[in-house]
Amino acid sequence: RARSRGRRCSVTGTPLLLCCYLAYLALGTSVFQALESSAARDSKEGSKSDNWTSLLNYTCLDRQALDRLIRDIIQRYKSGVIFLSNTTSMGRWELAGSFFFSISTITTIGYGNLSPQTMGARLFCIFFALLGIPLNLVLLNRLGRLMLFWVQRWALWLGGAQKNQARARWYAGSFALFSGLLLFFLLPPILFSSMEGWSYEEGFYYSFITLSTVGFGDYVIGMDPGRRYPVWYKNLVSMWILFGMAWLALIINLVISLLESSIVLCPCSRRNPCRT
Amino acid sequence: RARSRGRRCSVTGTPLLLCCYLAYLALGTSVFQALESSAARDSKEGSKSDNWTSLLNYTCLDRQALDRLIRDIIQRYKSGVIFLSNTTSMGRWELAGSFFFSISTITTIGYGNLSPQTMGARLFCIFFALLGIPLNLVLLNRLGRLMLFWVQRWALWLGGAQKNQARARWYAGSFALFSGLLLFFLLPPILFSSMEGWSYEEGFYYSFITLSTVGFGDYVIGMDPGRRYPVWYKNLVSMWILFGMAWLALIINLVISLLESSIVLCPCSRRNPCRT
Ligand SMILES: [K+]
Ligand SMILES: [K+]
Repeated sequence: RARSRGRRCSVTGTPLLLCCYLAYLALGTSVFQALESSAARDSKEGSKSDNWTSLLNYTCLDRQALDRLIRDIIQRYKSGVIFLSNTTSMGRWELAGSFFFSISTITTIGYGNLSPQTMGARLFCIFFALLGIPLNLVLLNRLGRLMLFWVQRWALWLGGAQKNQARARWYAGSFALFSGLLLFFLLPPILFSSMEGWSYEEGFYYSFITLSTVGFGDYVIGMDPGRRYPVWYKNLVSMWILFGMAWLALIINLVISLLESSIVLCPCSRRNPCRT
Repeated sequence: RARSRGRRCSVTGTPLLLCCYLAYLALGTSVFQALESSAARDSKEGSKSDNWTSLLNYTCLDRQALDRLIRDIIQRYKSGVIFLSNTTSMGRWELAGSFFFSISTITTIGYGNLSPQTMGARLFCIFFALLGIPLNLVLLNRLGRLMLFWVQRWALWLGGAQKNQARARWYAGSFALFSGLLLFFLLPPILFSSMEGWSYEEGFYYSFITLSTVGFGDYVIGMDPGRRYPVWYKNLVSMWILFGMAWLALIINLVISLLESSIVLCPCSRRNPCRT
């Protein structure tokens, strides 16, 4: 009976959840619009007055022809026809680039700095992702469980030493949280700033956008043709992506269980928590 | 004791799983490299001989200066300084663009056709995603459960009519699978081809890359400034993303449970299945 109640709750609570979702989207929309549109307007004004003339100066084109040229170049850039004479191996369909593309596909990060152009590669990409995404989730699940297992084991050992299980578990949990935060979010930007020349804030933003699998592709490692990237760096970043995603998945699962157990999202009685 | 066995299994099975993962990545790497590098070489050759000269013709620059100009333009394009005089409202930080950006962030699709440029917006983006991604997962979970609930109810009704529960469940399951496939993958490309001018294959590729939340950003709806996009189209696509992701999450969960229960990935005995 508890099961059918939980199901009924999931039916009646959905409109409320949908309202929360839409309100949250509206909040995001307005804040992003407010923060970015003025900056975009400024830079657009700047580019119109300053950069346009500088570009017009070193070509022999009028504004309209230059506009067409720029659109043409961007179109070709987006469709993967690479004009630039020197790109890194990460930016081409070589071993490093293809490997990084495969990782970015099955982790669903999808930076999009490389994307398949031929129909065959696109079709293969679909089948590759269809099996690869679940495989990646299984591996992340396994890694997350392993990390939890070691933390719990350590908590048990600590509890035996301190003769206080609850406090030991609390210690171990917060230690795991903060060491993860340090290892996956606070230290990597230092590495990125030395290898990529990004600022600390940019590296932090890149770390979050990558590990949350959003992957806008505005920052991608290993793409600056003016820099040398050692092999250990690329491998370390791959390991960081894997373990960081597993850690962040644990955190996101924690937030999900907090959200789902919250009374706001499911108007059931307290005595009858809404879990199917 | 079963639990500790499951854990031990998850410890011993992990290297094997990791090997499968790496082998799968190696497969992807080699196939993508084989399929794309020759096509890229062809188009590069083509662009070098054909397009370079055409570009050189309508500017008064030598090759090196043009290379610098192109690099400059691409850099500015990537950093969001929009040169083009006409973009759609989806491509700017207006209401439609900000809303679509918010959706693409919390669903972790992250097309990257728009990405925040100011540090304030980036910081907000992190916090927005940190709560928004779990909220989105909760909603998808709820929608998926609702869809399952209706399918099961239908199966029950069908079983009552046909007096064969197992066959009715099988019918309902395969009907749900194929109607989802039709509704979320086979029909949308027709809409996209009429609204965006993509071919059917391109629309199908876009559908999969979007609903799997990979989101390379090589194809994004509503970005062609030469077309008029009605409001119902954008809303319909938003609904499609939401329900399609919920449906695909159900399918991916099915593949995960098949993968995790397979003996290959966890070398335990058959009598002791590896579930913690
Ligand atoms: K993504
Ligand atoms: K992406």
